[in-house]
Amino acid sequence: MPSQNYYDVTDWNQGNPYEDIGEVINSIIADIKSRQTDTNVNQGGKPGAVIYIPPGDYPLLTQVVIDISYLKIMGSGHGFTSSSIRFNTPESEWVNWHEVWPGGSRILVELPAGVGTKESDGAAFYVARSGDPRISSVEFADFCIDGLHFVDDGSGNDDPENTYLNGKTGIYIASAQDSFRISGMGLVYLEHGVTVYNADALAIHNNFIAECGNCIELRGSGQASKVTDNLIGAGYRGYSIYAQNFGGLLITANNIFPRGKSSIHFSGVVRSSVSSNRFHSFYPGMLVFEGSCSENLVSANHFFREREPWGPMQPYNNGLDDLYGLLFISGDHNSIIANHISETIDTQYITPPGAKPVIIRVVSGQGNYISDNHVVATTEASQVQDATGSCFSTQVSSLLATQGLQALDVTTVQIEKESIQNTILDSGSDAQVVVDKAVNAFRSTPVPGLPV
Amino acid sequence: MPSQNYYDVTDWNQGNPYEDIGEVINSIIADIKSRQTDTNVNQGGKPGAVIYIPPGDYPLLTQVVIDISYLKIMGSGHGFTSSSIRFNTPESEWVNWHEVWPGGSRILVELPAGVGTKESDGAAFYVARSGDPRISSVEFADFCIDGLHFVDDGSGNDDPENTYLNGKTGIYIASAQDSFRISGMGLVYLEHGVTVYNADALAIHNNFIAECGNCIELRGSGQASKVTDNLIGAGYRGYSIYAQNFGGLLITANNIFPRGKSSIHFSGVVRSSVSSNRFHSFYPGMLVFEGSCSENLVSANHFFREREPWGPMQPYNNGLDDLYGLLFISGDHNSIIANHISETIDTQYITPPGAKPVIIRVVSGQGNYISDNHVVATTEASQVQDATGSCFSTQVSSLLATQGLQALDVTTVQIEKESIQNTILDSGSDAQVVVDKAVNAFRSTPVPGLPV
Amino acid sequence: MPSQNYYDVTDWNQGNPYEDIGEVINSIIADIKSRQTDTNVNQGGKPGAVIYIPPGDYPLLTQVVIDISYLKIMGSGHGFTSSSIRFNTPESEWVNWHEVWPGGSRILVELPAGVGTKESDGAAFYVARSGDPRISSVEFADFCIDGLHFVDDGSGNDDPENTYLNGKTGIYIASAQDSFRISGMGLVYLEHGVTVYNADALAIHNNFIAECGNCIELRGSGQASKVTDNLIGAGYRGYSIYAQNFGGLLITANNIFPRGKSSIHFSGVVRSSVSSNRFHSFYPGMLVFEGSCSENLVSANHFFREREPWGPMQPYNNGLDDLYGLLFISGDHNSIIANHISETIDTQYITPPGAKPVIIRVVSGQGNYISDNHVVATTEASQVQDATGSCFSTQVSSLLATQGLQALDVTTVQIEKESIQNTILDSGSDAQVVVDKAVNAFRSTPVPGLPV
Repeated sequence: MPSQNYYDVTDWNQGNPYEDIGEVINSIIADIKSRQTDTNVNQGGKPGAVIYIPPGDYPLLTQVVIDISYLKIMGSGHGFTSSSIRFNTPESEWVNWHEVWPGGSRILVELPAGVGTKESDGAAFYVARSGDPRISSVEFADFCIDGLHFVDDGSGNDDPENTYLNGKTGIYIASAQDSFRISGMGLVYLEHGVTVYNADALAIHNNFIAECGNCIELRGSGQASKVTDNLIGAGYRGYSIYAQNFGGLLITANNIFPRGKSSIHFSGVVRSSVSSNRFHSFYPGMLVFEGSCSENLVSANHFFREREPWGPMQPYNNGLDDLYGLLFISGDHNSIIANHISETIDTQYITPPGAKPVIIRVVSGQGNYISDNHVVATTEASQVQDATGSCFSTQVSSLLATQGLQALDVTTVQIEKESIQNTILDSGSDAQVVVDKAVNAFRSTPVPGLPV
Repeated sequence: MPSQNYYDVTDWNQGNPYEDIGEVINSIIADIKSRQTDTNVNQGGKPGAVIYIPPGDYPLLTQVVIDISYLKIMGSGHGFTSSSIRFNTPESEWVNWHEVWPGGSRILVELPAGVGTKESDGAAFYVARSGDPRISSVEFADFCIDGLHFVDDGSGNDDPENTYLNGKTGIYIASAQDSFRISGMGLVYLEHGVTVYNADALAIHNNFIAECGNCIELRGSGQASKVTDNLIGAGYRGYSIYAQNFGGLLITANNIFPRGKSSIHFSGVVRSSVSSNRFHSFYPGMLVFEGSCSENLVSANHFFREREPWGPMQPYNNGLDDLYGLLFISGDHNSIIANHISETIDTQYITPPGAKPVIIRVVSGQGNYISDNHVVATTEASQVQDATGSCFSTQVSSLLATQGLQALDVTTVQIEKESIQNTILDSGSDAQVVVDKAVNAFRSTPVPGLPV
Repeated sequence: MPSQNYYDVTDWNQGNPYEDIGEVINSIIADIKSRQTDTNVNQGGKPGAVIYIPPGDYPLLTQVVIDISYLKIMGSGHGFTSSSIRFNTPESEWVNWHEVWPGGSRILVELPAGVGTKESDGAAFYVARSGDPRISSVEFADFCIDGLHFVDDGSGNDDPENTYLNGKTGIYIASAQDSFRISGMGLVYLEHGVTVYNADALAIHNNFIAECGNCIELRGSGQASKVTDNLIGAGYRGYSIYAQNFGGLLITANNIFPRGKSSIHFSGVVRSSVSSNRFHSFYPGMLVFEGSCSENLVSANHFFREREPWGPMQPYNNGLDDLYGLLFISGDHNSIIANHISETIDTQYITPPGAKPVIIRVVSGQGNYISDNHVVATTEASQVQDATGSCFSTQVSSLLATQGLQALDVTTVQIEKESIQNTILDSGSDAQVVVDKAVNAFRSTPVPGLPV
């Protein structure tokens, strides 16, 4: 008598997963709830279940609603492929392609959502529960959620598929929760990848979340969570990782690639850590601490900003100019220590024209500690030419172009007058740091050839 | 003819997993051993097996004894929920709860263990083998081990469920072993979560180990292992991570929350690394290097200590006062570089009364290197009020409270006279560092507004 | 009607996995291709599949050829055991061993490959596809690939099993690819563990890759990938991690143990990050940046080099002397920040005799930034005696030997005259750093007892 708590969506007695997997999963959840009713039998009684999604294409027309703890939904393949490259290749060429769409254990989100719809209505997986205790230990693992298409934003953009808007969300967790896990997933072409309100001890680990409007949004408030070891890259409109009113968030070991309006965007986040990540961006404002973000650590990260090398995306950016700060800091007592920051851009692309780009900019607050950061600023070696369908080689040659670069004059650290009592050590020469030494502490990085 | 090496505990011909899963698993292990007897057939012959535990509640009355290599025991759900919050909520309210107990693929440890019993007797999973070679590649993945209850410690504590004592251990590995993996597990309400003697190339990865007396204990000696990407938090009596006589241990990417007598406790550990973690504690002694710990690196970590905000746990602490050191270092040639350390506590709660808290304290040894650490010390913004059942919101509001803090006078680094030849750079001002400059090197952090 | 996209190699209708698993898997792939032909049905049509390998011994006589996206091959056990210890134990003792060979879901690579064969011919798994799009999201998870034996290299070495040569590769990815994952694997006794050409968004995570000639080789070019949280250790001839013409590689949270000709070897790698790893080596050249490696970050790592303590391997080394540099840097604008570096070696073993070992050596390029590194150099406490079969205890006692060490005179940083405009801060005293101050910037680490 094998366990009743293991379900396979392709082997269930209600609905058809190849027509609407949402109906199937909701029916399974209803079955679990009807069988697991006692909360105290044998000191348990509600162990939850696992729902398995084998590799396959599964349209989702009905939102999955999860209100039970200990439910694991898992597949056998994150199934990512670049939809952005496909949609920026003439459709006439697709006929020659080996395959056209993402794969693996793949949910095709076909909800009747759209721009302007209530956000949670467009969520493939919606988690919410009131009452006590908080819903716990729901797990999403190793499957693909594909938003399929972006839509016209009314702006007259040539291609709706480049808007990063469609009102769809992969996983939307609306109520306070504990010890959730999201791992091994592939999320693509969703306006919002993962949105979580009021997280506690959340783990978002080893996912592939790319070509989404926003990738990870931690909203409301939260504590003691980790976003680790993911490959992430949002569209030009949205956040790769956003967190709000969070304490004790650990963001480490992620490789966060373009585009992303920002790679990391904190609002009111405190006592959190951004360490040992690799960040790559095409715009200023890679890391933004807005509102009042305090006592956070940014250490041992690699930041690289260059100009967008790929033709189809060159019309877009996040609207920020080069005086905004590649790292923008508002708040108290943050630590920016031991990071490498590279920026390479031709002077003709700097905005406003003639400006001296700012790398680390502290706009308010006090007591921030900025030490031992190495800033490398150069002009581009050459203009990388775009070739349709060669996004990979275009990007790689851009990324690898370090030969024959010329030094670019930048402000490595700028402390606005609204911010005081900061300490800036070994993060730029006298000529590179803008700081009022009467109200801040400053030690310049020694300059080669000059006396220390 | 599907493989004979895949077992499902709910589909086995001996014992009943809903009565005693220990008997079932031991019977499966006996079956594996009876079938796999040749050590050299086809250059193999003993591949081991996988034992699958579907989601469900499985009492364990018989200890599982593992003495074969290549055994993987796996479930489909770590199943954590907070037992501490439950037991500190009046039982009369449980009737309204959605669920009361942990879940997932859940082992209920009902061994007749108790305080004072031989420790290994209380282990749900006991691994031991003598002879050659060392037992290899046993794996535990994605299930829950629940110790159910703590017990009276005879101290007259009001609530036995808050003692963190019950004589139970989740996984106890008694003999030298190689290349084990523990990943995806949920361990709760055990006096000892994972205890491993003489580990080599052990990986403890992406687990949820909380509300245990101790979480991870690496004893005897060991080398070349990693404890990475876990969510961990021990009780006030025990260690979140303990290691003894270890070389080459890597502890990174963990989010270690309260309480824990200490977050990291090393005894005789050398050439190991603690980097890119986030630590949160309610007591001094967050990181302790005792005995002689040498040539270790502590870098890019975020440390935060505050006072216990949650009423039910405020009676407890680890007994250390604020002069002990938030980081306590005994040993030679350790490196403490590029960490952020926050402490916030009201002066009325400092012990001994009127003391100036010590953040990094070196008590013996020589040649330690303490550089580029940013210490932020403040008094509490306000007293967070406890409300029963609102542990999450209490803790979050405590954690987020950074507005209106007042600076607290602390000793950022104190080098005791027993320790010499240390180097302290940029880790505090002249007024904040206690060091004999005749026998140590010291460069103060520049103070804002004063000449460098 | 369970999914047709889930295959079990022990339950397939063609071939016999206990005779040749390669034939079975290729037959399954052919079946997938024959069933999944439409690239656009329901916006999908080619989801791929999962092939499950239960624990067992599976000889592979036919190379597996993968040319479809979204294929996941997974087992239930990485199955590593030390073949090196076994082969350096007299075969007469094996009869008393519990088990002799690796296990888990184990592929025995019995391809007719050998030294001198075309490298890809010796690959157990060979991935290649031309045309568009790049092959995507193939995944390898949780099984073992065992190369079984090394072979005579014609050099007159006593033991062919110690050559680290056999012409075999575990996974060989020949063509540009996107979003592949290799996780949870165990690779042993292969001349090449994983070889990947032109990787994009590759994740190599939580594997055990040891006792291979080379472990991970990223060749051609590549971008935006991560090698994280692995246990790795190559033989004395090869690389633990090698990367070529890569941009945006993140190497973090790995524990890389001996031997390895080098632990990290970059050739033409730029804008990449090596952070929060632990490295242990027996030779100089632990980290090598050759060609022109630029704008990379090396931060928060622990490096330890000692002399080979284990008798059977003491005859071998990588041929580099102690003047080569423990870290060898060729390139521009790299950052080496906040690392701990330990070296312990008896003066009699230093080569050339009487030399002063060099720790960080910059041989060319400009603008490198070397700051806040703590170098600990000592002579060995005592000669660790080798005992056959006690590799573990020998290595542990060697690793733990930190008592009574004597300081060893080393050059902590050496900037060759071919390299200029570098900045060296707090990484050695005046006496320890060799640098032309006329063309570089230098600030010495303060020396205990001397004025700052």
